Order: sequence, then C-alpha cells, then structure tokens
Amino acid sequence: MQLAILGSGFIARFYAESLVAQRRKDVVTMIYARDPEKVKAFAQQYDVPHYSTNLEEAVAHKDVDAVVVALPNHLHLQAVLACAKAGKHVLCTKPLGRNAAEALQMLQAVEKAGIVGGYLEDLCYTPKFLKSLSSVKNGAIGEVIWAKSRETHPGPHSDWFWSKEKAGGGCMIDLGCHCVEISRNFIGKDMLPIEVMCWADTRVHPIDAEDNAIGLVKYANGAIGQFEVSWSFRGGMDLRDEVMGTEGTIWLNNFLRTGFELFTTGKGNDYVAEKAESNTGWLFPVGDEVHELGYSHMFTDMFEAIEKGKQPSETFYDGYIVNAILDAAYASARSKQWEPVRI
Amino acid sequence: MQLAILGSGFIARFYAESLVAQRRKDVVTMIYARDPEKVKAFAQQYDVPHYSTNLEEAVAHKDVDAVVVALPNHLHLQAVLACAKAGKHVLCTKPLGRNAAEALQMLQAVEKAGIVGGYLEDLCYTPKFLKSLSSVKNGAIGEVIWAKSRETHPGPHSDWFWSKEKAGGGCMIDLGCHCVEISRNFIGKDMLPIEVMCWADTRVHPIDAEDNAIGLVKYANGAIGQFEVSWSFRGGMDLRDEVMGTEGTIWLNNFLRTGFELFTTGKGNDYVAEKAESNTGWLFPVGDEVHELGYSHMFTDMFEAIEKGKQPSETFYDGYIVNAILDAAYASARSKQWEPVRI
Amino acid sequence: MQLAILGSGFIARFYAESLVAQRRKDVVTMIYARDPEKVKAFAQQYDVPHYSTNLEEAVAHKDVDAVVVALPNHLHLQAVLACAKAGKHVLCTKPLGRNAAEALQMLQAVEKAGIVGGYLEDLCYTPKFLKSLSSVKNGAIGEVIWAKSRETHPGPHSDWFWSKEKAGGGCMIDLGCHCVEISRNFIGKDMLPIEVMCWADTRVHPIDAEDNAIGLVKYANGAIGQFEVSWSFRGGMDLRDEVMGTEGTIWLNNFLRTGFELFTTGKGNDYVAEKAESNTGWLFPVGDEVHELGYSHMFTDMFEAIEKGKQPSETFYDGYIVNAILDAAYASARSKQWEPVRI
Amino acid sequence: MQLAILGSGFIARFYAESLVAQRRKDVVTMIYARDPEKVKAFAQQYDVPHYSTNLEEAVAHKDVDAVVVALPNHLHLQAVLACAKAGKHVLCTKPLGRNAAEALQMLQAVEKAGIVGGYLEDLCYTPKFLKSLSSVKNGAIGEVIWAKSRETHPGPHSDWFWSKEKAGGGCMIDLGCHCVEISRNFIGKDMLPIEVMCWADTRVHPIDAEDNAIGLVKYANGAIGQFEVSWSFRGGMDLRDEVMGTEGTIWLNNFLRTGFELFTTGKGNDYVAEKAESNTGWLFPVGDEVHELGYSHMFTDMFEAIEKGKQPSETFYDGYIVNAILDAAYASARSKQWEPVRI
Ligand SMILES: NC(=O)c1ccc[n+]([C@@H]2O[C@H](COP(=O)([O-])OP(=O)(O)OC[C@H]3O[C@@H](n4cnc5c(N)ncnc54)[C@H](O)[C@@H]3O)[C@@H](O)[C@H]2O)c1
Ligand SMILES: NC(=O)c1ccc[n+]([C@@H]2O[C@H](COP(=O)([O-])OP(=O)(O)OC[C@H]3O[C@@H](n4cnc5c(N)ncnc54)[C@H](O)[C@@H]3O)[C@@H](O)[C@H]2O)c1
Ligand SMILES: NC(=O)c1ccc[n+]([C@@H]2O[C@H](COP(=O)([O-])OP(=O)(O)OC[C@H]3O[C@@H](n4cnc5c(N)ncnc54)[C@H](O)[C@@H]3O)[C@@H](O)[C@H]2O)c1
Ligand SMILES: NC(=O)c1ccc[n+]([C@@H]2O[C@H](COP(=O)([O-])OP(=O)(O)OC[C@H]3O[C@@H](n4cnc5c(N)ncnc54)[C@H](O)[C@@H]3O)[C@@H](O)[C@H]2O)c1
Repeated sequence: MQLAILGSGFIARFYAESLVAQRRKDVVTMIYARDPEKVKAFAQQYDVPHYSTNLEEAVAHKDVDAVVVALPNHLHLQAVLACAKAGKHVLCTKPLGRNAAEALQMLQAVEKAGIVGGYLEDLCYTPKFLKSLSSVKNGAIGEVIWAKSRETHPGPHSDWFWSKEKAGGGCMIDLGCHCVEISRNFIGKDMLPIEVMCWADTRVHPIDAEDNAIGLVKYANGAIGQFEVSWSFRGGMDLRDEVMGTEGTIWLNNFLRTGFELFTTGKGNDYVAEKAESNTGWLFPVGDEVHELGYSHMFTDMFEAIEKGKQPSETFYDGYIVNAILDAAYASARSKQWEPVRI
Repeated sequence: MQLAILGSGFIARFYAESLVAQRRKDVVTMIYARDPEKVKAFAQQYDVPHYSTNLEEAVAHKDVDAVVVALPNHLHLQAVLACAKAGKHVLCTKPLGRNAAEALQMLQAVEKAGIVGGYLEDLCYTPKFLKSLSSVKNGAIGEVIWAKSRETHPGPHSDWFWSKEKAGGGCMIDLGCHCVEISRNFIGKDMLPIEVMCWADTRVHPIDAEDNAIGLVKYANGAIGQFEVSWSFRGGMDLRDEVMGTEGTIWLNNFLRTGFELFTTGKGNDYVAEKAESNTGWLFPVGDEVHELGYSHMFTDMFEAIEKGKQPSETFYDGYIVNAILDAAYASARSKQWEPVRI
Repeated sequence: MQLAILGSGFIARFYAESLVAQRRKDVVTMIYARDPEKVKAFAQQYDVPHYSTNLEEAVAHKDVDAVVVALPNHLHLQAVLACAKAGKHVLCTKPLGRNAAEALQMLQAVEKAGIVGGYLEDLCYTPKFLKSLSSVKNGAIGEVIWAKSRETHPGPHSDWFWSKEKAGGGCMIDLGCHCVEISRNFIGKDMLPIEVMCWADTRVHPIDAEDNAIGLVKYANGAIGQFEVSWSFRGGMDLRDEVMGTEGTIWLNNFLRTGFELFTTGKGNDYVAEKAESNTGWLFPVGDEVHELGYSHMFTDMFEAIEKGKQPSETFYDGYIVNAILDAAYASARSKQWEPVRI
Repeated sequence: MQLAILGSGFIARFYAESLVAQRRKDVVTMIYARDPEKVKAFAQQYDVPHYSTNLEEAVAHKDVDAVVVALPNHLHLQAVLACAKAGKHVLCTKPLGRNAAEALQMLQAVEKAGIVGGYLEDLCYTPKFLKSLSSVKNGAIGEVIWAKSRETHPGPHSDWFWSKEKAGGGCMIDLGCHCVEISRNFIGKDMLPIEVMCWADTRVHPIDAEDNAIGLVKYANGAIGQFEVSWSFRGGMDLRDEVMGTEGTIWLNNFLRTGFELFTTGKGNDYVAEKAESNTGWLFPVGDEVHELGYSHMFTDMFEAIEKGKQPSETFYDGYIVNAILDAAYASARSKQWEPVRI
C-alpha cells in the first residue's frame, strides 16, 4: 500500500512511526504540509520519496493509493472531499467531523466516490481492547450493562485544540470521541444509541470550551455507555476502560499502570511517555506506545480492508455515529436534560 | 527476507504468528518437520509455499535466505551445522546449546561460515525491556547493583523437556537461560560474569532434572544477576524483572499483571494466555502475546542486522555466555559452593 | 464506654468484631434482637453480659451509655426516637433515614434531647480515606474539581434490602449513601450540594427498585461528586475512590486490589472476603476487614466525641444531607433532568 | 496491662503510637531514656505518668507489669537481664540478639525467671500476613516449597545501625531478621532450618558492614526460605512476600503498592510514609502504618498471652532461631559455601 500523510504534527509522527516499524510492507510515499521547510524535514526523517505543500497535488499523486488525514479537526472535511474527488481511499483521524453534519457529508462523499472511508479510531484497536472485545463477543461476561471509558490528561499540546471553532468543542469532542466509540463497541455496534445526559464545565483553563465532562449514553437495550474526560487531570495520561456484564467484568488500563514501573532520582532525562508530567520519582512508561495505543493493528485492518475490498472495523459511518452522540451530549450539557441522539 | 522454519511445534507457531502479523514484508517460504502430514498442514495454515521432511533440503532451498531453528534443544547443534554448511544465516531459539561446549561449536561454525548467527532471546526484546534498557543506558537508575529476572510456570507442554538428555537439564536450562541474559543486559554485556552460586532441586514433578532453582551470578564489577525459575508455580506464567541501581529502580511485569483484568463466571471459553491455569474467576490475559513477549522486535532486529551486514543485539556469542553461566550454575548446585564461569 | 447494640445481623456482627478487637476498653454490655434464641447466642459469642428482646428496655438499661443501631433502614427512626427518649447517645448505621424527612426527624430528636447523634459512615473512616482527606486539606492536590466514589457488588444478603418500602430504595440508597458522603468530604463539608443528575435502572434482578445507578452531584463551587453503584457487579466487592484536583490526583482501592493476591487450585475453603464470589483461582482478600473498612477509627472517633462532649466527624446532620442528596437523585432519575437538593 | 518502654527513638514512638491508638485498655506507665529532657518530652507527648533515666529503676517500678525493649541491638541483652532480675515480662524488639549466643542467654534468662519473653516481630503480625498464614495452614496453597521475603530501603536513620559492633552486622541482621522469620512461619515453625547459603556485599555506603544481601535457607523438608535485603534500594521501602506452594501462590505487598496512589505537583508537604524518598510526583502512602505494619495485632497477642499465662506467637525461642540462621548466613557469606545452622 502506498500512502500519503496530510499533516506533519503530533499524530502524523505517530502514524509515521507506526508505519515504518516492524518492517511493514506498506510505505509512505507522500507527505503534505503547509510549511516548505517542515514538509521537507519530515520527508527526510521518514524516508518519504515525495513531498508537497499543495493538498490536491499530494492526494492526486500517482504513487498514492490511500490518504491518511492527520490535520486539525476543521480541515478534515475538505481533505476528505479532496480524496473523494481524486478517487483515493481515505483514512481520517478522530474525530471524523466537528459535528454530525460535517461527518455526514464525509460519509456521503466516500460512499458516492466508491472509496473506502476508514475512521482512525486507534483506541478501538489496542491489543487489550481487541482481546477484550472478542471475549465479550464470545459471551465471557454475559450481557453488557455498562461500559465506561475514561481519557484524561493535563491538556493538549497545540493552540488549535483550544479554539472551539477549529476543534468543534473542548475535551469532550477531543477525548470523548474515543470513549464513546469504545463503549459502543462493547455494547454492540448493532445497538442504537438513544439519548444522552451530560455534564460539561470549564473549571481550570482560561478557555471558552469545556475542560471537563462526563456523559451517559443510553442504548436501545438499556445499556449505558459512560465517558469521563478531562484536560485538567494531573499525573500523566489516564486511559482506562471498565465493563460490567451480567456474567463478568473487564478492567483495562492502557497507559498509566501496565506493569512497567521506574523510580529515578532524576539523573536520566529521556522521554517517558505521551503527556507524562515529570521525569523524576515514580514513573510509569509504556513499552511500545504505537503498538499499545493501537496504531499497528489499526493500519493493518485498514489496509487489509482496502486490499480485500471490504470495510474496516472502524468506518466513516462509525465516526458519524460518534459525532451524533457528541452533538446530543453538547445539547444535554446546555439543556440540563437527556437529549435524543439524532441519526 | 525469505525464511525457513525448522520445527512445527509450540514455538514454531509463535514465530510464524509473529512473522505474518502486521503486514511484515518478510515471508516464510519453507517449513521443515518430520511428519509429512503435519508439515503440510503447517504450510497450509500459514501460506508457506514450500515444505519438506528433509532438513538439509529445506535449509539448502534457493528461496531461503535465513533459517529459524525451532527444534528441541538436542537438535540445535546439528541444525546450525547444516545451516553453516549451506551458508544460510541462522537464527536459533533458546537455549543455544545444552551446554557451553555445544554452544561454542555453533558459535565457531557460524563464524567460520561467515554467516549471521542470531540468538532468538525474545525476552530481551520485549517492548518494556527495550525501553528499560535504554533508560538504564541513559543513566536513569545509576549503576546497576542487582538485576533479578524470574520465570515460573506450572511445567512444560512437551515430553522432551522432561528428558535431561534431550533438554540438557530441567527448568534451569529451559527458563534460566532467559533470566540470565536479561540480567546480563541490565548489568552490561561488557561486564564479565565471574562466578555462580545456585540452588536447584526436584520438589514436585517425578523427574530427574530440577523443577525449581535459584541462582546468583556475580559480575566483575560486583553486580549480582539473580534468576528464579520454577516448573511448579501455580497461577499462570510469572515473568517479572527487577533492577536496583544506585539512583533508581525498575519493576517489569511482562505477563500476569499488565493492566488487563477480566472476571468471568465461566460462560466464555476462549484461550486466555500461554500457561493460564483456568478460564473462570479473575483472569489476567495479555493483549498481544507475540508482540509483548518480544517476537516482533526480535525478528526486526535480526533481519535488519542481516540486511545491513551487522550483528543483531543477541548473537550466538551471547547464547554461548549464557550456556557457560548455566554450566557453572549446575556445577554449583552439585558442589554447594560458588563455581567459576569458564568462558 | 458501655454499649448496647440493636440488631444481630450482618452489620451488628461487624460492629461487635470491631469492638472486641485489639483490646479496646469500650465494651458491649447489651444486645437487643427480636429472636430469643438468636439474641442469646449473640450475647454468648461476644461475651455480652445482658440481652433483651425488648428495644426500649435494652436502650434504657443502666449499664448502657450509648446505643448502636444496626437494624434495617425502616427501623432506624423508631430506634433513634427510643434513644432520644431514654437520653442515651445514639450511633446509627447508614443510611440515616430512608429519605430526608425521616433523617430530619432523627436529627431534631437528638438535638432536642441533647445527646450525640453519630452517623456510622465507616467508609469515611478507612485508614486510606483519613490519610487522603488530610492530604487534601493540606492542599496536596489543590482544589478538588471531581470526586468519584464507587461501590458495586453482586447484590445484598438479606431479603429486606430488596423491599423498596423497607429499604427506601435499591442500590442507590444502600450503596450510594457511602459514595455521596465520601465525595462530599473530599469536596469539603462546608460546600453546599446544589443539584443532582442521576440515571438509575433495574437491569438484572427481578425487583422493583434500581439495581444500577450513576449520579452527579453539583456543589456550590462547581465541583462534581460522582457515584457509581451496582447490585449486579461480578467479581467481588469493588470499593474505589478517585479524586481529581487542580494540583493532583488520588486513587484509592479499598477492597479488591490492596496488595494481597492469592491463587489456589481449591483445596483451601476458608472465608475470603465480604461478597467474594469464589474460592478458587486468583483471589484478593483484605488483611483486616473491620480495620480497613473503617470500623476501628469510626468507633474511636465516636467514643472520643461523646467523652469529650463534642461532635464526631460524621453526625446526624451529615446523614441528613446525604439523604437530601439521594432524594434529589431519585427525583432526577424520574424526571430525567437535574433536580435541586432541598435542605 | 501496665507497660514500661525502654528507649525513646524511632521504634519507641511507633510502639507508643500503636499503644495509644483505638482506645486500647493497656497503658504505658513508664518511659526510660538516657536524656533527662527527651524522656520528659516523650512522657508528656504520650501522657506517660512516670519517666526515668535509670533502666533498673524503670523496670522495677511497681506500676509496671511488662517491659518493652526499644533500644539499639547491643543493649537488648542487658535490658532483658534487668527484666529477668526484676521478674517483669519482657517484650524485645528485633533482632533479639546480635548473634545466637546473645539470644540464647536471653532465652535462658526468661525461662529461668519464669517470665514471658515476647519477640516483637511485627511483620509476622501484619493483617495480610496473619490471613495468609491461616490460609496456608488451611491448605489453600498445598505444601510450601519456597517462601521469599524482601525488605529494602535507602538506609537506616540512626548512626548506631552503621556500626557493626553495635548492630551486630549490616542490613542482613537489621532487615534479614524479619524476612527469615516470615519465611519460617510460612514453611512451618516445626520444620528445622538446616543450612544457609548467602551472598552479602558492601556496594554503596562507606561502611564496614554489608549493605546488600541475599540468602537461601534450606529446611528439613527441602523447602527454601529466601531473603532479599538492601540498604541501597531507591524508591521508598519495599516490603514484599511471595510464597509458592504445590497448590497455590501468595503475593503480599505490605508497603509500596497497597491500593493508595497519590500524585501531587508538590504543594502539599506532609509526612507520607516511613522511608519515602520524595513528596512530589506519584506517591504511595500507607493508610494506617502502625496497624498495617502489624503493631496492633502484635501487642494484642503479647498481652493476651501474658494475661492467659501462655506463649505469644513470637517468642524469644523464635528470636534465637532467627539469630542462629543469620549467624549461618554470615558464615556462608565469608566461606562462600552452604553453612549449617547450629541450634
Ligand atoms: N489518538 C489519536 O488518534 C489522536 C491523537 C492526537 C491527535 N489526533 C487528531 O489528529 C489531528 C491533528 O492533531 P495533532 O495532535 O497532530 O495536531 P498538531 O497541531 O500537532 O498537528 C497539526 C498539523 O496540521 C498542520 N496544520 C494546521 N493548520 C493547517 C492548515 N490550515 N493547513 C494545513 N495544515 C495545517 C500543522 O502544521 C500540523 O502539521 C486532530 O484531528 C486530532 O484530533 C488524534
Ligand atoms: N520463549 C521462547 O523463546 C521459547 C518458548 C518455547 C520453546 N522454546 C524453544 O523452542 C524449541 C522447541 O520447543 P517447543 O516448545 O516448540 O517444543 P515442541 O515440542 O512444541 O515442538 C518441537 C518440534 O520439534 C519437532 N521435533 C521433535 N523431535 C524431532 C526430531 N528428532 N527431528 C525433527 N523434529 C523433531 C516436533 O515435531 C515439534 O514440531 C526448544 O529449544 C525450546 O527451548 C523457546
Ligand atoms: N458498611 C456499613 O456500614 C453497612 C453494611 C451493611 C449493612 N449496613 C446497614 O446496617 C443495617 C442492617 O443491615 P444488615 O446488613 O445487618 O442486615 P441483616 O438483615 O443482616 O440484619 C438485620 C438485623 O435486624 C433484625 N431485624 C429485622 N427486622 C426486624 C424487626 N422488625 N424488629 C427487630 N429486629 C429486626 C434482624 O433479625 C437482624 O438481626 C442496615 O441499615 C444497613 O444499611 C451498614
Ligand atoms: N519494625 C521494627 O520492628 C523495628 C523498626 C525499627 C527499629 N527496630 C529496632 O528497635 C531498636 C531501636 O531502633 P530505633 O530505630 O528506634 O533506633 P533509634 O536510634 O531511633 O532509637 C534508639 C533509642 O535508644 C536510645 N539509646 C541509644 N544508645 C543508648 C544507650 N547507650 N543507653 C540508653 N539508651 C540509648 C536512643 O537515645 C534512642 O532513644 C533496634 O533494636 C532496632 O532493630 C525495630
């Protein structure tokens, strides 16, 4: 598979790391970014043969089979439309849109163009998640009655995240999209989300958008999907899922407590982990971030789907449903009552 | 890279799983096993184009660049000699030999043939280990004064393991080889092991060889490498490393406590993990075994080394040192005093 | 201190265990229960000199300084009124009332009688909780913005719990009362609870009352207290608290993961822990339940308060506030919107 | 029970805290220390009615039923002899003697005087240990084949510990005495220790005595008791026990991982835990140290034994055996071979 990556920021690097790791046969052949210097540097660092500062050109390049969108939220729609126009398969980072209306446009565009629209929801591809989900499907915990997912950290690294306009919201759209889709998978994708109750507030940062939120999503069978998100958590990045079923329980810790504990008085200074807050005292690194955060399995699923002409596990349709649930969550935070999910 | 796998048992399957995972560009082109039915079935299962019940033939096949030895311990030497004769790079599973004398023959054979001799010590390639080792090298924990590694489980799955003749010993040669090399890496491969003190006993199983052992390996700088191994541990497979340095501490849990906890009343019946003892109650699966046990990074390192004409991180020389240390351990268990490591 | 215990069921035994442990100078001098056989047996087991099947008589006995109410929820009010009438200090188990109206009557009765009304909220006296709370008060985690408490288990042991009439509700009144008061302590008892949003449902058991509930309690400063309760959790009793502050984080595990792990193939058969679901496989006992669940520190605080003529940390006023919050939670579960706390 | 405490240092305070906690009926009526100011201050702080700078006088005081020896190791013998002379029951902190010869004198003195000689081995009274031991005795893990205990921290707080003469050794006598007795309990006190193999070295501190040691103690039935001790561990105080039985496994964490996790950016400054190394970042406090470290149950057992005229669980005989095992360990560290335990 020959790939173009659009964007050269934080997640673009993660994607590139994941794609060059473990002698994968798929290759990044094109990188697009605005800045001529940065795009060149990125191409050199990851041995990418072509680079461009023109999005349409990058997408249309003959050595590109599929496009990975790694741009800020407000640019997803136009990037996807460009791919649809060029007839290139498109894999878009999360959240799909800033809202369901945008996501629906993207979904319709890929359907019309007859291309694969893959939703890069890495946390639904972590090794722990995949094994858990298959246990759930095998009936190991009976019927799921509650599935909670939590993602909290001290706050994002780039300015655009803090702009409600560009991001589409605060920590809820940024982190909640992961949590919603994780819960939805555990409860079952065939189960419709009905209504949402949500609290969201701006408690710590000097921003317009919410920096803390908790929501409950009720599904057609009565199951509850819960999300807990925060941009003001202290202590690193907390990524945990909990599922209660009638016959069992699942507890996943994806980041801060994975069996890797290191104490240092401070003489070593290397990078510990995404969003770690310090480099002395007790630290909790992750062995292989790109793998444990799901990127390896995610891209494998996406490329196999494209090659075999079928849908990946996470599609634009899923991204759209997530946006619709989050729209209802924002509505509920304002109205202070349960709000219907409009799909 | 085009590969032949010799053997079609437990570890051969692990290797094959690891090699087909994540769209790796390296391919298994040949499988050798004694049984005509089994070898064919293996070839079909993993899409291997060629198979053979003749070891020399398999090794010599033109579509084979490198050979992976996945046979019982007593067959490593002859398999390696066959590869040396055919001039094919050889990657041999652990332990390299049943003793240092065998290992030395293998080391000399690959050196003479001018081929790469890779030692498939997967536990020195787990993501946690690799990150820890780089922290240690960056000085994060100061000087290492003690490095302990522990591998215990309820006992092996195949008959040949229980034969002292075929295996070269009991749990100490089987599991201790991992532990010795893990400690040695943390202490520093440039540091010579000097002497060993060891207790080994047969406490539970009706066998000749030891089913429990503990050893202390003293290095030239006074650092101690400790191993704890057992074939009578109850509760699953316990794989833990602990390192004490003058400026810090490392605790790794590679298997039983990795942030994945599942309780089930027993309705689900799927495979949980290597050596798990039950499938009800609280279970502790591992997300992606081949990755977390180091196979992915191990093969990547081996193939890159071969392609770039350099040595992998774990070589036949390392396997030889491990055997020499274990020889001293067996001597100490008999003599009841510290025994020198003869290298 | 000379004590009467009213009731001889589950919690009465826990209280008695706690009072006889560690050579405490306080003594149980009277036990009341309906059944003549049972009351006598209880008295014998715990060396209690007097016993009675008449509540008023028991309370009025001259060798009784203070009364511990360990009866089902619907009997708390009349027991407290009997103590007020007799002028005996009264320590009442949780929840104080079935609703705020009952609790208010009790609060007014003890105030009028000039006796101490202690609220036996043991989970606000666990050693971990006490140390955490003092860290929070010292500013270790800055301003608390979210305090979550969770109590879940497979369901209660006595029939009366399942009667909405007798218990005042389901798992929310039963377990939520603990969680609400834990969160309230972390947020600060001087901070008023303003409104509550709650989901409650009957998903598993064939009962009238809710067997699962989640609620958010908003305080005057914007902080959120969250509770998660269930009578259908599988795997034991899950008692966890999590607090996010502007400068730190607290995670407490009070029961299922406290550094005590035991695997057994099943030959041992002893009692493992309150609500444990099995006695083979991996088990997670608690060292000293009455101590770790807070009973020791709770009674110490209560008796010191009585002796020194001051209020304990947990009073009838606190019990009343908890009931008022839970009343709002029940209202919200019905109305599907935030409901004000009426105090 | 009326008690004298001899010594007013670190452990004397722990003992006093434990004795005043939870409204215990036993009281400290006398405190002895050399320094007139310090002894007075101690008496005031803990409401002790009598104090003295004369050891014999303190012991002989009419309001003293039993004496708690909390003095440095080299003073245990003379303190015990003074108690024997005065006919007062004596409870002596660990290690009983600096070697078996001293311990034997103490044992013979109490036997001759007809008084109770209690060995204050608190770590054989932690709630987790007590429950584990009773599980082991009920057969929950079958026959014990290996029992390991580990105590490591960054080094002691008082000068006398560093004097081989006063302490009787380094970290092995100081911490190893705990570990040896823990293992011995799990293996069974009726089982004789036969021989010891030990490594001990001075790696970090500028002292005569060992600051790191590991030992194996072989019992008559072939079971192995292992100890790991260090005065150069970084990260706090590590107190862990592990037991392997033919039918099960026990893992106890008594200090650093007990379900209490706190992250702080550093605004709070309170005392976290014995031997904690920092007060920012991730911290792992213990809820109620005197209780979780075993002091409560230890004194309860001691006083009940005295009152009922029977032996406590840990006696001077046990202290003597521990010393004999450690004597063999020191001999082995020197001779580099297994050394017999001479009892
Ligand atoms: N786990 C995950 O899946 C994950 C994690 C982080 C971010 N993301 C998503 O990835 C996307 C990018 O986030 P990020 O963290 O990499 O952000 P970032 O700020 O680090 O990088 C954004 C990139 O987009 C480029 N860019 C910004 N504005 C542009 C414009 N107008 N035209 C062209 N290029 C522009 C920037 O130069 C930069 O290369 C977001 O949608 C985010 O939600 C996903
Ligand atoms: N983590 C690890 O690295 C790891 C784990 C398990 C095993 N191993 C090693 O792998 C090797 C094989 O172990 P296993 O667990 O796969 O054993 P196994 O018994 O499952 O498989 C052994 C294979 O060798 C074949 N074989 C046996 N005798 C043979 C003979 N005389 N001629 C030809 N083939 C023969 C068997 O048919 C089988 O395919 C051993 O050296 C073992 O130490 C390594
Ligand atoms: N952690 C805690 O603080 C905790 C735990 C469990 C229960 N509780 C509380 O303790 C109280 C009792 O619960 P329990 O678990 O002990 O219940 P239980 O059913 O085990 O015991 C109830 C006792 O009350 C007696 N009783 C019942 N009906 C009676 C009546 N009409 N007249 C006189 N006596 C009667 C029963 O005989 C029994 O002795 C409840 O309020 C419950 O919420 C508190
Ligand atoms: N967990 C435990 O059981 C535990 C923990 C720590 C210490 N200990 C033991 O307790 C004993 C004391 O240790 P510590 O940590 O309290 O030491 P410390 O130095 O803190 O206190 C020692 C006390 O003895 C007094 N003292 C010293 N020399 C004296 C002398 N010549 N005459 C009279 N008094 C003298 C000191 O003034 C001080 O009050 C030791 O035997 C030690 O092994 C046990």
